[in-house]
Amino acid sequence: MIVATALVFIMHLGFASLEAGLVQRKNTVNILFKNTMIVAIGLLTYYVMGFGLMYPGGEGGGFFGFAGFGLSLPEGEAGGIAYAEGHYTYWTDFIFQAMFAATAATIVSGAVAERIKLGPFLLFATVFVAICYPITGMWKWGGGWLDEAGFYDFAGSALVHSVGGWAALAAVLVLGPRRGKYTKDGIKPIPGHNMPLAALGVFLLWFGWFGFNGGSVLSADPMAISLVIVTTSLAAAAGAVAAFFASYMLFKSHDLSMVLNGILGGLVGITAGADQMGPGEAILIGAVAGILIPFAVVFFDRKKIDDPVGATSVHLACGLWGALAVGLFGAKAGLGQFFTQLFGALAIGAFTFSFAFAAMFILKKTVGIRVSEEEEEKGLDAAEHEMHAYGESLSDQPVAAFEMAK
Amino acid sequence: MIVATALVFIMHLGFASLEAGLVQRKNTVNILFKNTMIVAIGLLTYYVMGFGLMYPGGEGGGFFGFAGFGLSLPEGEAGGIAYAEGHYTYWTDFIFQAMFAATAATIVSGAVAERIKLGPFLLFATVFVAICYPITGMWKWGGGWLDEAGFYDFAGSALVHSVGGWAALAAVLVLGPRRGKYTKDGIKPIPGHNMPLAALGVFLLWFGWFGFNGGSVLSADPMAISLVIVTTSLAAAAGAVAAFFASYMLFKSHDLSMVLNGILGGLVGITAGADQMGPGEAILIGAVAGILIPFAVVFFDRKKIDDPVGATSVHLACGLWGALAVGLFGAKAGLGQFFTQLFGALAIGAFTFSFAFAAMFILKKTVGIRVSEEEEEKGLDAAEHEMHAYGESLSDQPVAAFEMAK
Amino acid sequence: MIVATALVFIMHLGFASLEAGLVQRKNTVNILFKNTMIVAIGLLTYYVMGFGLMYPGGEGGGFFGFAGFGLSLPEGEAGGIAYAEGHYTYWTDFIFQAMFAATAATIVSGAVAERIKLGPFLLFATVFVAICYPITGMWKWGGGWLDEAGFYDFAGSALVHSVGGWAALAAVLVLGPRRGKYTKDGIKPIPGHNMPLAALGVFLLWFGWFGFNGGSVLSADPMAISLVIVTTSLAAAAGAVAAFFASYMLFKSHDLSMVLNGILGGLVGITAGADQMGPGEAILIGAVAGILIPFAVVFFDRKKIDDPVGATSVHLACGLWGALAVGLFGAKAGLGQFFTQLFGALAIGAFTFSFAFAAMFILKKTVGIRVSEEEEEKGLDAAEHEMHAYGESLSDQPVAAFEMAK
Repeated sequence: MIVATALVFIMHLGFASLEAGLVQRKNTVNILFKNTMIVAIGLLTYYVMGFGLMYPGGEGGGFFGFAGFGLSLPEGEAGGIAYAEGHYTYWTDFIFQAMFAATAATIVSGAVAERIKLGPFLLFATVFVAICYPITGMWKWGGGWLDEAGFYDFAGSALVHSVGGWAALAAVLVLGPRRGKYTKDGIKPIPGHNMPLAALGVFLLWFGWFGFNGGSVLSADPMAISLVIVTTSLAAAAGAVAAFFASYMLFKSHDLSMVLNGILGGLVGITAGADQMGPGEAILIGAVAGILIPFAVVFFDRKKIDDPVGATSVHLACGLWGALAVGLFGAKAGLGQFFTQLFGALAIGAFTFSFAFAAMFILKKTVGIRVSEEEEEKGLDAAEHEMHAYGESLSDQPVAAFEMAK
Repeated sequence: MIVATALVFIMHLGFASLEAGLVQRKNTVNILFKNTMIVAIGLLTYYVMGFGLMYPGGEGGGFFGFAGFGLSLPEGEAGGIAYAEGHYTYWTDFIFQAMFAATAATIVSGAVAERIKLGPFLLFATVFVAICYPITGMWKWGGGWLDEAGFYDFAGSALVHSVGGWAALAAVLVLGPRRGKYTKDGIKPIPGHNMPLAALGVFLLWFGWFGFNGGSVLSADPMAISLVIVTTSLAAAAGAVAAFFASYMLFKSHDLSMVLNGILGGLVGITAGADQMGPGEAILIGAVAGILIPFAVVFFDRKKIDDPVGATSVHLACGLWGALAVGLFGAKAGLGQFFTQLFGALAIGAFTFSFAFAAMFILKKTVGIRVSEEEEEKGLDAAEHEMHAYGESLSDQPVAAFEMAK
Repeated sequence: MIVATALVFIMHLGFASLEAGLVQRKNTVNILFKNTMIVAIGLLTYYVMGFGLMYPGGEGGGFFGFAGFGLSLPEGEAGGIAYAEGHYTYWTDFIFQAMFAATAATIVSGAVAERIKLGPFLLFATVFVAICYPITGMWKWGGGWLDEAGFYDFAGSALVHSVGGWAALAAVLVLGPRRGKYTKDGIKPIPGHNMPLAALGVFLLWFGWFGFNGGSVLSADPMAISLVIVTTSLAAAAGAVAAFFASYMLFKSHDLSMVLNGILGGLVGITAGADQMGPGEAILIGAVAGILIPFAVVFFDRKKIDDPVGATSVHLACGLWGALAVGLFGAKAGLGQFFTQLFGALAIGAFTFSFAFAAMFILKKTVGIRVSEEEEEKGLDAAEHEMHAYGESLSDQPVAAFEMAK
């Protein structure tokens, strides 16, 4: 579990690398800054109140519960011992869940990249991790009403990925596309600035997913964990190969970003049922997710939903697919389960989308969420951070002593 | 074992980074694409038939055996339980071995970089992982004739690295050098385009090697694993220092790529006997491997065998050295063992080289394996992928809606 | 423990990435070369004599002791069995400690970047890892006089980080600032050349710290390790947020490098007491460390102590803070403990600073430690390595066969 936590942590580096690689050079520092701050804010926020909201304890459950601020067990040694009846400690549980929570906010960060204001985004991320994510999380993992209804989501296709995806969709709709992306002559491609960085990010995400899914077994049962690792890996591989063929058929090109997103799609897709599937089913689920990717990218672009990194295609489309797949394949397959999965996924989506839309809308009407046209043109690195990613000087003039640290 | 599997997975990121860093900027997307696809194809192929070929089970053995397509135990929970008598499960075994198999194909990818056609290469990689690698693997690890003959290869100096190296050599011989590399005035250096990426790759490979060698203990015996980690690390360190001195003596330069390949050489060299050596012997084996590196690079370049990343020097030369070293040092040293090692390594080489040469030759005579002169000049990123690695636009024109996803 | 060792190893990649990202493009190969060689030299040196100096064994202790060269237990299987009474083996202990030792030298490497000569620096690093680091390490961890005095340092805020920081300070004072950094018109900012690489480095360091602190529990007690992981993560998060606000107040900017160093400061700060603090105290310690960062950067720059990567701010300032914090918060807090911590930290500092200053001074007066003005201008990559980091050719002329390997 502790190793799994470390692996889930590395997913944040994966997201940071992937998103930095897929944005333009002029917005690189900004996306790195946001993703770094999200991890920090996410951990602290989840400590202060998210964990209490998600695991209300006691009789638990229902639609909403709150165990109080901070970690609710006595601090220090006692806390762990009280909890130690299971295979992992209270501390392990907290930190593993906290790493998950920050993941959901990171998904949003990629979709709104290259035009959102830094401060309002960080405010949004804080509220999202503190309140929105834990509430739907509790519905299932905290013993709430979806859990009682028989909804199944092993490691979060719906509860983590589709939640991040719905919030990303809401945020993009409030925010609008990047300037110059959709013109009357067609759609202008805005290529990412660093493909090795993007590929690095996807490999690190896959690596981290071994912890994300493997650790969700919540014990060290080698049988269960090893099956999960196999299904996870085969789904990722199938996602890559399927996205390769699908994008070749659609676009007659060998597009690296499609293959990379195919891997992520396969991983997101298997996440809800990684412990319920055999290898063959895992390959099928991953392959469908991989095929979904180019179609989803095309769909969102036609709707002028501008998502520079494809986060909605990967996390929303494949997250929903993953939740439904639990009702279609594997040990839990059945018509009743399918409708439970569908209903649960939609309920989670309705709540998350509404929450995120409302939060973004309020921020838009109050502090504003979008940088000026001029700042977008110039790039957020220069506009918000007064520095560039690759050492180009803003100015060669020496500065007075107190400004030097820039 | 599961942690080891995750670490071996990260080696694929290591290879992708290293090879991307050592090629020219214009071929970066192509090498990333190939190495990503190899992991995906390798996992699926090994699932479909590689595992059955390598571990024929039953009385096993001989020169060739096949347990059938797919995983041969019942899928789902039962499969693991049936196997669970040992320290690891059937699933763990499969995924760990599958990660190894894909490694061998990745070694080839670097050697043929910058001029091979994408499709034929992926076809070659598929056949290689599905058929060639598992056959020689079975000879030893599947209880075949080399195992009976007393040949020893702890984690694959011969069975993984020299196999990759022999295939790389065969492929390069069929393919020919990059245009402009060997001129009548001498050899033109073609420097890699991103040294931080190359260094990152080597560190990740070293990191992954802890899993590669540590996991090959095939149990969680802390004594055996910890010794293997120590010998592996000391050999890598000795390889770096030895390559540093050797290349300084030969070229009077402090060449980063030599030191990085020295580390890899040391790692490859210790891999066959990582559990048989003490720390002093590990240092010696690593040092010899490190010294071999610059000489091998010079040797292959003089023979006009153009290997942009030095894969033959690292994996073939040091892989052979590692196999022989088991007969020279450590618990198994002895004249009989030495000749067994020599004979086994040559048998593996003869089979692999012939297979790879034939496969490449057939591909050359049918679909063709080499891009056109013009495409090689322009770079494979533009020619095969219609995109660049660092965001340079191919064209600023808006495109019709359906082409946008490029 | 073995997993922890692998994680600590990855810290070396973290340092290499961070430092490469924060130097100028023209010195990138040089810093990668140094950090690669330090790992190799550090492991070998620690094997040859560092381990024997640090763990003199027997009655141990005092100010100085030496168990002899090489690993002092019989090599091979016997060595581990003899030690196997505890939860980890002799081999594990050695390799884990060796990874720590090399860390201290890596800290120095960043501070002296962009103007030190390669050879003398590697000589310094060798002596530092072989002699200086193990002596103060023994004072506490080898059962020496500081251990008897009740000084506490869980995983090395003082014994690793402040030791690296003191040596960095001494080295910078002997070496002098980069040319053109401090002018009569003010301080010239010299921005790092690759911020994604720097961010990658910090995430990898955080990842590695799970091993650094988690492994320092020296057992697999899940309660203790999980608490340490929680305190470590919360301190890092608090460091980031505090550095964000502090640097915004001081400079009115959102400076990525401050946030990244804030994370590192939080990690260094919690390291001495990671097992003694509750989550709330960990957040407090991390926040103070994060606030310290921009002030320390300003302080050192005003004193014209030119440290391109901020190593003294992170490792010296926050390392001292971490050592003192053990006396202020958590299970060991108390006035007596505080003064013991203060005294211990100063004693370690006095020895390390003197040793490093003397070693650097002797090197300066004998072989010289600084490159020429011309070489500094041209960059160390061209001057010392005859290669560039990003593939720019030094010359397009074909070369004679024997020089090709450059």
